[in-house]
Amino acid sequence: MSESSLDVLAIGNAIVDVISRSEDQFLTQRGLDKGIMRLIDAAEGEALYADMGPGMEVSGGSAANTAVGVGLFGGRAGYIGKVSEDELGKTFRHDISRAGVRFETAPAVSGTPTARCLILVTEDAERTMNTYLGACVELGPDDIDAEMVAAAQVTYLEGYLWDPEEAKKAFRKAFAITKESGRRASLSLSDPFCVDRHRAEFRELTEHYVDVLFANEDEIMSLYEVGDFDQALQHVRGHCEIAVLTRSEKGSVVVRGDEIHVIDAAPVERIVDATGAGDMYAAGFLYGLTRGFDLGRCGRLGALAAGEIISHFGAKPEIDVKAFIDQSAHALQA
Amino acid sequence: MSESSLDVLAIGNAIVDVISRSEDQFLTQRGLDKGIMRLIDAAEGEALYADMGPGMEVSGGSAANTAVGVGLFGGRAGYIGKVSEDELGKTFRHDISRAGVRFETAPAVSGTPTARCLILVTEDAERTMNTYLGACVELGPDDIDAEMVAAAQVTYLEGYLWDPEEAKKAFRKAFAITKESGRRASLSLSDPFCVDRHRAEFRELTEHYVDVLFANEDEIMSLYEVGDFDQALQHVRGHCEIAVLTRSEKGSVVVRGDEIHVIDAAPVERIVDATGAGDMYAAGFLYGLTRGFDLGRCGRLGALAAGEIISHFGAKPEIDVKAFIDQSAHALQA
Repeated sequence: MSESSLDVLAIGNAIVDVISRSEDQFLTQRGLDKGIMRLIDAAEGEALYADMGPGMEVSGGSAANTAVGVGLFGGRAGYIGKVSEDELGKTFRHDISRAGVRFETAPAVSGTPTARCLILVTEDAERTMNTYLGACVELGPDDIDAEMVAAAQVTYLEGYLWDPEEAKKAFRKAFAITKESGRRASLSLSDPFCVDRHRAEFRELTEHYVDVLFANEDEIMSLYEVGDFDQALQHVRGHCEIAVLTRSEKGSVVVRGDEIHVIDAAPVERIVDATGAGDMYAAGFLYGLTRGFDLGRCGRLGALAAGEIISHFGAKPEIDVKAFIDQSAHALQA
Repeated sequence: MSESSLDVLAIGNAIVDVISRSEDQFLTQRGLDKGIMRLIDAAEGEALYADMGPGMEVSGGSAANTAVGVGLFGGRAGYIGKVSEDELGKTFRHDISRAGVRFETAPAVSGTPTARCLILVTEDAERTMNTYLGACVELGPDDIDAEMVAAAQVTYLEGYLWDPEEAKKAFRKAFAITKESGRRASLSLSDPFCVDRHRAEFRELTEHYVDVLFANEDEIMSLYEVGDFDQALQHVRGHCEIAVLTRSEKGSVVVRGDEIHVIDAAPVERIVDATGAGDMYAAGFLYGLTRGFDLGRCGRLGALAAGEIISHFGAKPEIDVKAFIDQSAHALQA
């Protein structure tokens, strides 16, 4: 195994978020389930956008957020995802590149627009996501740069990537390369409905391919179809090297065989928008892991990063994360 | 004078902001003067965008922000400004319309892109603005809907509108209609460099056309080329009906002939981004004025709105302003 040129290579649906405040009533009237990501087509996207309030556009995509987070921590991050050559696509490319993430995937040329996610943030800081996948459906195995995967310490995929058919093939190709090259494969289960759509395959992936699994409480319970967190915990610890289970204000649990860490959530004055908490937790954790930190410290880094992101609007840090982490150094000692 | 159908009609350069954190060094290296708006051409815009960090796109434009603010307060607001039919233009149209602002200006069809303002926000919360005017230069007298102006209690123009040649004609047309129809004309001086560019004309406007003038300390001192605030105050009080002079943390001064109000700034925990403070002050003030509130209360409404906007990123309120104002009712009593 040659020396790595990347710490984390993230692969996912390349999406620009359109974030808007919303009232509960708006969701109810449209039959939208709060806190859930659902896929919509172009026509529904147009209709919903016309109805929703003024927005703020920010480059997003779950795995892309994680790549940006790793970069902000000072890690070497790469990203594979498909945008179009339209304005949103250029914005996405600019933003992720300027965050220091290596992003070289060729753009879609079919004319399908860049994906967007219409995010409705309610007063309780929950985000309800409506994703038009657009150009993402054109990501395929040819977009997986084998050398990039082989050169990354960890290749991190979002469960959402399992939705578009061609991306699934890309996903399998990337995981196969991590095995061949002795690198780590990591998966985020993305959301409980995503797990519902792909449960059998996600279980198979977790058992045979995934070295580092990220899931929140709902997702891991959905994966094993059990009714409480502890049951899910007992299931998962036999099935992948490291499982990282996040539980919002209850903190997180990191488990590797018999080693287990129960990490508190970082104190947050006021939760403004939960968007991106899981993505940033993964960024902090993977940054630590690729630096060789012990698992407890990795978890605390994840919790700190997640705590920062939920205290304001949008899935990108507002602060200089490196300075933030330096200031928090005392919290990170073993 | 028939009954008004609008409280405030704002006219300005229709711009989408691209907001990004920046270090002081980035400004120094590029010779950018902190806190200033400067005009750039398309090529310079491309080059600067390529260099700046990941951004967040939010519909902006000084007068447009004010119109949105008036709408959020519950006032009836309209807007005239020129966008293109590109993605940014559609975003602008969506955002301002969904904020409840009447916006009916025909889009530019020349192919010139919608204006954007590259805003670099430094650690001290100052914003350095680089504006590519794009389609804004196509706003002309034909875009001024005479009925809309005649039906608005106040027509509010930003000084920036004096930069594009055709917009200047539109500006004069709008002011003339306010006179003919017995409505109020209001002007924001926008920024001290804008005043430098157009001092003689701004003085003439202030003396003969403007009923309600908005200016910050630097702008009003630049207008009269005097070295301290009090001198500027003595000049301006003879020259327009109402002058509203904002002074950042020193609060604001509202003057109408012999009547003078010295208003404290609203307490703010931490200033994150000064973008839009003046625009929101004007929104609060004009909302109050068109409700018939006394000038002191108008000033306190302006100060509250400005205080909200500077405590987070971007020029749009993150809170439900109406609820915020209700909560602050005690601060608004005469």
